[in-house]
Amino acid sequence: MKRYTIGIDFGTLSGRALLVDAVTGEELATSVLEYAHGVMDEALPDGTPLPQDWALQHPRDYLSVVHATVPAVLKEAGVSPENVIGVGIDFTASTLLPVTEDGTPLCFLEEYKSEPHAYAKLWKHHSPQEQAARMTRIAKERGEAWLENYGGKVSSEWTLPKLLETLEEAPGLCEAAYAFVEAGDWLVWQLTGVRTYNACAAGYKAQWSKQEGFPSREYLSALHPGLADLAYDKMFLPPLAMGSKAGELTERVAAMCGLCPGTAVAAANIDAHAGVPAAGIDGPGKMLAIVGTSTCHMVLGCENKPVPGICGSPEDGLLPGYFGYEAGQTCVGDGFAWFNENCLPASYVLEAAADGVNIHAYLREKASALRPGESGLLALDWFNGNRSILVDADLSGMILGLTLQTKPEEIYRALLEATAYGTRMIIENYRAHGVEVNEFYATGGIARKDPLMMQIYADVLRMPVHVVGSQQGPALGSAMYAAVAAGEEKGGYADIASAVRALAPKQTVLYTPVEENAAVYDVLFEEYRRLHDYFGRGGADTMKTLKKLRA
Amino acid sequence: MKRYTIGIDFGTLSGRALLVDAVTGEELATSVLEYAHGVMDEALPDGTPLPQDWALQHPRDYLSVVHATVPAVLKEAGVSPENVIGVGIDFTASTLLPVTEDGTPLCFLEEYKSEPHAYAKLWKHHSPQEQAARMTRIAKERGEAWLENYGGKVSSEWTLPKLLETLEEAPGLCEAAYAFVEAGDWLVWQLTGVRTYNACAAGYKAQWSKQEGFPSREYLSALHPGLADLAYDKMFLPPLAMGSKAGELTERVAAMCGLCPGTAVAAANIDAHAGVPAAGIDGPGKMLAIVGTSTCHMVLGCENKPVPGICGSPEDGLLPGYFGYEAGQTCVGDGFAWFNENCLPASYVLEAAADGVNIHAYLREKASALRPGESGLLALDWFNGNRSILVDADLSGMILGLTLQTKPEEIYRALLEATAYGTRMIIENYRAHGVEVNEFYATGGIARKDPLMMQIYADVLRMPVHVVGSQQGPALGSAMYAAVAAGEEKGGYADIASAVRALAPKQTVLYTPVEENAAVYDVLFEEYRRLHDYFGRGGADTMKTLKKLRA
Repeated sequence: MKRYTIGIDFGTLSGRALLVDAVTGEELATSVLEYAHGVMDEALPDGTPLPQDWALQHPRDYLSVVHATVPAVLKEAGVSPENVIGVGIDFTASTLLPVTEDGTPLCFLEEYKSEPHAYAKLWKHHSPQEQAARMTRIAKERGEAWLENYGGKVSSEWTLPKLLETLEEAPGLCEAAYAFVEAGDWLVWQLTGVRTYNACAAGYKAQWSKQEGFPSREYLSALHPGLADLAYDKMFLPPLAMGSKAGELTERVAAMCGLCPGTAVAAANIDAHAGVPAAGIDGPGKMLAIVGTSTCHMVLGCENKPVPGICGSPEDGLLPGYFGYEAGQTCVGDGFAWFNENCLPASYVLEAAADGVNIHAYLREKASALRPGESGLLALDWFNGNRSILVDADLSGMILGLTLQTKPEEIYRALLEATAYGTRMIIENYRAHGVEVNEFYATGGIARKDPLMMQIYADVLRMPVHVVGSQQGPALGSAMYAAVAAGEEKGGYADIASAVRALAPKQTVLYTPVEENAAVYDVLFEEYRRLHDYFGRGGADTMKTLKKLRA
Repeated sequence: MKRYTIGIDFGTLSGRALLVDAVTGEELATSVLEYAHGVMDEALPDGTPLPQDWALQHPRDYLSVVHATVPAVLKEAGVSPENVIGVGIDFTASTLLPVTEDGTPLCFLEEYKSEPHAYAKLWKHHSPQEQAARMTRIAKERGEAWLENYGGKVSSEWTLPKLLETLEEAPGLCEAAYAFVEAGDWLVWQLTGVRTYNACAAGYKAQWSKQEGFPSREYLSALHPGLADLAYDKMFLPPLAMGSKAGELTERVAAMCGLCPGTAVAAANIDAHAGVPAAGIDGPGKMLAIVGTSTCHMVLGCENKPVPGICGSPEDGLLPGYFGYEAGQTCVGDGFAWFNENCLPASYVLEAAADGVNIHAYLREKASALRPGESGLLALDWFNGNRSILVDADLSGMILGLTLQTKPEEIYRALLEATAYGTRMIIENYRAHGVEVNEFYATGGIARKDPLMMQIYADVLRMPVHVVGSQQGPALGSAMYAAVAAGEEKGGYADIASAVRALAPKQTVLYTPVEENAAVYDVLFEEYRRLHDYFGRGGADTMKTLKKLRA
């Protein structure tokens, strides 16, 4: 009998379902829906303005993705629902929302619709920077052992700073909420009726470990008298390992999606982390960069080495039997989108139209014609702060070397290059702390669509770049985990390693470093490193001063 | 009898004639012509490509200005040619061109039309940076006394680096040339048949002084064995003081322009310097900023004080009896034009059109709505290098503080603010070296047209800003000098002081500092100063490294 598995990937701006042949790995259908509310960073739907650094989402958009895309892939592939053995979900993290006892988001209630804290706080909701800094300081003071496994610094992108911010700014809402859940777990709950907490989000974003559990009640109480109760009573659950079955589709959801009740639903995953099996990564030293809105850098290690400035290295966090090191850059595709929206002159739009080419293709062609160093520009890619290795949301972007001859495509290329330098900083930091990075793999939409960027990465990193995996990497990974959750007896797999061997795409595209380019980029990278340290490590606090004046 | 005077001002992109009532100062007619070839910085008219940092002009464009605009103002004002008592010319400087014995520019000859060195090297032709640096080094080694009166550093914008570059790169052309002349003097030659060298250009751009004359043959020979002969035989003449009569209109030119033969033509001037009498400046301590493509900062002093990083302080250079201190910023209007051409997104153009407003007005309105510090941005205004006080054409622009929320109008405002910080650096440098700056006057097109910019200047400088003078400041100054050249007996004036009293416009617009804004700008200026010193004074040579890689 034919059998299929579905992965649903929730990114920053859209969600997509992917239907995969559970035997061959063939990707049979995909469907994408953009979130109607996108990222709310200026105002709530009713116009309530949001402070600087806020980034919220509307959970109704997540449900719309399920309702629209799952029936669409079934229809497109012409697959019978009884042949679908499992559904898996991955989500950005930490994306956190408060809910009632039946799982209704507080922001769905009339009384909370103007309360910003009632919405889903997206991973890039950076406003709890003060709370994150306090968490670092108190963890150091108390000698919390977990801190060094998370790069030595707590990020505002993680779970507990968001929870603490909500407690401090909206204590009544915390009182009223039944629970705070990761958005991925919330969707699993919506699909199955079962509330779970996935081990991936718990491990990477809430400092949970197999050995030590969550941060202690004592530590949480030192941050705020009410935080220990809030976290332990309304958020923490025993985490569910990746590939576990969280539950089965309810009658109601199955009917709405055109699937069969009882279909296995896997424990949720973080989107980037789900991309690792989909890229066929199977051992240590192979860095996988998942290049999208932001970039995540994953690499497996056999030992637990403290590496400053990374996001974490939970055991079994990416693949069983390894420490799963994660680092990241907060502004990659987001930065190019910013450029396209704010910096593309009308004349270019007209010229592209006259040439009958897409404006982005037009821009890329112009940027591709430049040789390394020709623009005379150097950028810092911190438009959304710096995740690794500085872990500082108060940093900002910079473009240097501007002249009256500077062209838009030169700025665009400098922004591409800056993300490559940021990746090199991350790799050099890993190596300096004993984590091997011997090969470089890239996946994600931008990796596939932008040969210029991938060649720049090969040249800047002085490593061949293998573009691997599915166009829908995280969704494929989620489909793999769904097949594991379904289990061998239902035609799935016993473990994720077996699923990777069977289902990961085998084709790769290779970009090889060009020595001449690499030599120029070595010089530029040293300048990047110098400015990185000057502005990011206390040489000049200009960016922080500017940020304070803005507020 | 009615009497009139005409000033012709040659700027970077266009030339304009102004016809003035020589009794009341009333400006009766003006006419502007853009240069057909503009600034040639990428290729010659025949397609010959130009290296980085070149900026040439085609002298035929200058003649077109005379032929088009003088008849136009006569016609518009309905003035009889016999009532025009004089013509004065001002020009950007040092703008240098090689000519034959009859004054024909070499670039007009078929054999030189593909030779870049045969064209007019515009003031902002920055490629002889190495020659300028060598001139500084050798002047220091030899203890040349003039160096400290010119800020201690030779600029590639001056005359001798341009001449030396031509000698080194095109010795045959130097051999063939009869003379090298400032473009302003070349026009006077075209109008009168008399070759002169104006004291303003000689004093500010070729290190000539009343006491010491031009730099010595020994010094020039130390730079290049052939330079002393070239300069002394083919360029230097005894300079003609401002307001002197250089000659009279020839029959041929008078016929082409609709003027009378024999009309007095004044010695040429530098454009910015001609703006000083037009602004009614009459004594020390009053800084005049002439805000255009670039900005010149003029202030009179009673003593000769060495001030590092300025352009010069020749005695009688601006007004008789004073030392005329000049400093400048190379990128002001040019920077905003760069922004408008390269950074204005199509969406803004569409929105402005939908609102029925000019795109620039639309942008200024958005920028005006921001409060100081709100953008979170800080820029370095060195898109065209730094003239004062770093005198370094290898520096470049920077924008820092960029985020995914950054809007085009915020970048635009940051560029405006950066020019104000640059002006404050210049003023603080004057004060630190004993030259008083007690009042601030602004003139030029941008000063009149941009209230936002003038308010920013008042706030950043913590000084009231008086916008003064004619819309056509340099042209009015040239008309004043023309009336002086004509002399009292022809209905003109005995000296420039009398002409200023009679003809300078009396109305001013005043911008007063707002303490709340000034306090924020104090903080931002300290950050500007820090980055100014870090990138401009050896903290990080990043800009120079980038520039080398570009080449």
